[in-house]
Amino acid sequence: MATDYRKSYEELTERVRQHQVLDGIGSVLHWDMQVNMPPKGAHKRANQLALLSGIAHERFTSEKVGELIQLCESGNGALSEAERANVREIARDYSRATKVPHDLVVELSRQRSVTHDVWTRAREKADFAMFAPELEKLVALTKQYAEAQGYEGTPLNALIEDYEPGASVEFLTKLFNEVKAVTVPLAERVVNSSVQANFDFEKNRFTAEKQRAFGEELIYEIGFDRQGGRLDTSIHPFCSGGLGDVRLTTRYNEHAPTQALFGIIHEMGHGLYEQGVAPETYGTPLSEALSLGMHESQSRMWENYIGRSLPFWKKFYPKLQSHFGGELSGMSVNDWMLAINHVERSLVRVEADELTYDLHIILRFEIERDLFAGDISVSDLPSVWNSKFEKYLGLTPPNDGKEGVMQDVHWSGGSFGYFPTYCLGNIIAGQLWKKMNADMPTMKQKIENGDFAEILAWLREHVHKLGRRFSRDELLLKATGKPLGTEDYLSYLTEKFSSLYKL
Amino acid sequence: MATDYRKSYEELTERVRQHQVLDGIGSVLHWDMQVNMPPKGAHKRANQLALLSGIAHERFTSEKVGELIQLCESGNGALSEAERANVREIARDYSRATKVPHDLVVELSRQRSVTHDVWTRAREKADFAMFAPELEKLVALTKQYAEAQGYEGTPLNALIEDYEPGASVEFLTKLFNEVKAVTVPLAERVVNSSVQANFDFEKNRFTAEKQRAFGEELIYEIGFDRQGGRLDTSIHPFCSGGLGDVRLTTRYNEHAPTQALFGIIHEMGHGLYEQGVAPETYGTPLSEALSLGMHESQSRMWENYIGRSLPFWKKFYPKLQSHFGGELSGMSVNDWMLAINHVERSLVRVEADELTYDLHIILRFEIERDLFAGDISVSDLPSVWNSKFEKYLGLTPPNDGKEGVMQDVHWSGGSFGYFPTYCLGNIIAGQLWKKMNADMPTMKQKIENGDFAEILAWLREHVHKLGRRFSRDELLLKATGKPLGTEDYLSYLTEKFSSLYKL
Repeated sequence: MATDYRKSYEELTERVRQHQVLDGIGSVLHWDMQVNMPPKGAHKRANQLALLSGIAHERFTSEKVGELIQLCESGNGALSEAERANVREIARDYSRATKVPHDLVVELSRQRSVTHDVWTRAREKADFAMFAPELEKLVALTKQYAEAQGYEGTPLNALIEDYEPGASVEFLTKLFNEVKAVTVPLAERVVNSSVQANFDFEKNRFTAEKQRAFGEELIYEIGFDRQGGRLDTSIHPFCSGGLGDVRLTTRYNEHAPTQALFGIIHEMGHGLYEQGVAPETYGTPLSEALSLGMHESQSRMWENYIGRSLPFWKKFYPKLQSHFGGELSGMSVNDWMLAINHVERSLVRVEADELTYDLHIILRFEIERDLFAGDISVSDLPSVWNSKFEKYLGLTPPNDGKEGVMQDVHWSGGSFGYFPTYCLGNIIAGQLWKKMNADMPTMKQKIENGDFAEILAWLREHVHKLGRRFSRDELLLKATGKPLGTEDYLSYLTEKFSSLYKL
Repeated sequence: MATDYRKSYEELTERVRQHQVLDGIGSVLHWDMQVNMPPKGAHKRANQLALLSGIAHERFTSEKVGELIQLCESGNGALSEAERANVREIARDYSRATKVPHDLVVELSRQRSVTHDVWTRAREKADFAMFAPELEKLVALTKQYAEAQGYEGTPLNALIEDYEPGASVEFLTKLFNEVKAVTVPLAERVVNSSVQANFDFEKNRFTAEKQRAFGEELIYEIGFDRQGGRLDTSIHPFCSGGLGDVRLTTRYNEHAPTQALFGIIHEMGHGLYEQGVAPETYGTPLSEALSLGMHESQSRMWENYIGRSLPFWKKFYPKLQSHFGGELSGMSVNDWMLAINHVERSLVRVEADELTYDLHIILRFEIERDLFAGDISVSDLPSVWNSKFEKYLGLTPPNDGKEGVMQDVHWSGGSFGYFPTYCLGNIIAGQLWKKMNADMPTMKQKIENGDFAEILAWLREHVHKLGRRFSRDELLLKATGKPLGTEDYLSYLTEKFSSLYKL
């Protein structure tokens, strides 16, 4: 009866595709909310997103889907290995979705929109008291969500699972401790090195228009498909959408041009992952990114490993200089390299350098863990934030807004357990990068020639086109010959910064 | 048992509100498709819109909604007059929706997206053969739709009913003949008048950026709420969304600045209608525009009756001149008045003047009528278009693209029977305008002072806030003391152009 199993498989994937279509609608609504929506549209948009989530959840969690999954699982022999992987991932999503009561799904969606909307205004005014009541409601609902999912150990584990399957607070803590042990002393040595960049971007004005134009030119030249994507402006930079329509956003600071520049390259890294999925798997888990950590490995690889490297700027720095005219005159490519790899203790995560960035993440990770364990409450966040900031980064945030506890969009949108995937992305990228160098001995020369085809092909082959077919460790084992570890990442950081700063 | 009827009414309107929320999502997706979406996103967007239409249709046409309507109708005595009107309109929508098979709804939505997408490319290449196959499919599906709805007389009547309840080919033909009888000879006299504008916008460049900035300043000064709306760019200008989030679009021609300028004022007229609905009726028919003809009466009133009048430009022309710097120097406000009211036989509807505009509409209306009666087929469209154009406007279209049969978006989106509402809007505006002048003797002085509060209040009171509470004729009877007729419109045209051109 192999044909019956096949028919069930087709019916199941068709239903999953519909679910993904609804997800895609939600993605457009979210993008629009952050890029276009006028202020008074917030209430209506919250209703739209809530109703859509409810409908999507209701349809996906129907008993019929459960029956089809069971049928497909019992007929595994009739399916290919890729199809079995699809069924496995659908079953995982179904199991997680059915654990959450329908009303909670709708309520969470609505509260996310409302909290996000208040955040944009409270952040502007640096008024945490304005933000706190809506954040409290969101945390309470998210705790209900964690309980519904169930977890071992601490509640945050249930939330992390949504972003990084198979990770846990314990596992992440171990990796992050290894990272801290190397980056803290290394950053100290870099900051105290006599070699330092001689630059002052502040004194010139780099217009947003010129920044945007150069950024666009760059990503299209690297290989981002402009027929299937675009670049816009939003308060918090992000990448959304998928194959055929990938949307990147950034924000411009006219006296700090590297922020948007590397922000754009970063989001392009996410975008290339989305554009690199296998088209024939469209609408199923096999066309979805493996995890947020894997996603972040792609953005950080393009932003830092490639984007902040000398070969890259040997190619593009002359273009950048001529694009901006006088604003960069007198700065050599070596000065530029020191400028874009300048290390300092700073207040804002998205402006942090490659070396101190992980400390920003680890700080947030610990706060999330304690918040969901019930050790601290929402009203404690500003003081806990500030004291951790002093401890880890030696700085006192001057306010609770853009330079303090409300700087990030994540918590306002209910994305708790998301932050650790940033640091994990750095670690994964390090491991992939080492293998890419071994597999492609002329890679750096090609980067210097502006030829990214081989790199893109490698990433598509070993990461992008696989989607959720393998677990993170399986994928890394196939691609690099070993499971996830921090060794390659930490060697890369040590070598790069020792060489740049002549340590 | 009055309380039971009330409970049914609350339940019914809650379901209708959900339907409107889904409609609102569709509106964002459509807007995005025309303003932002990259080309390769078309297929995915078509799937999104089709699935959304299907879900909305399925939920709205459920038996439960039918039962609630019946309950509310039988308990009419327990409801207020406004509530009874709401039930009447919901019943109308339900009846129309349940007549269409679910599969046809989904198929029509998908085909609309596909045909629209092909149209954007075929229009660019002026390649009707590229467009025809997808248009044929859309016409065939739309004919099925008309049959499902049922009609008296010709199939187009079933389609018109979606845009202009209570109108028919026969009724419209009568009105349009009255219009033609006056405007054709009047246009002839204007074209032959010795008084003519002395202007040549072509020789200067009016940057899109300056046009946009002035247009935005203007609409916010008139009273368009920028906290609940925005202005963007698209191939075909439109207004979408509703209270809280009204979106206007336009397009810029840097050598014909009046196109975008009056386009923006026109769309603002639509937007003011949407922003003027009664907030407490949100999500029900009472918060929806009465008909497209009534909608168009608002856009044409602001664009032509107010926007192309001398009092308006006595206020704004100095601002316009200083905004553009040298580009308008040497042109007096009287020259400007002749320039913006210049009459000529032209190829493109959206660039047509106030006087010949109706001829563009009548031509399309006749083609739609014959296409749906089966007297002509899709492949005949270019030749029928061209021969009617020669007959009514004395011009031979040079191509089938932007200056020919593919110039308008409407047919590509399946909006057949929509065009006559433009001419109807002109006629309705004429009737309202006459009464506004009688009710507000100092209105023109107030326009000259840039004070639009009284006008907006009149329109909100007599049109905007009523939504679909009354029929078109009931509304006009209440507002102007008589049912719809062409007399006031034709007097207005005759007086305006006789005076301007000293006939």
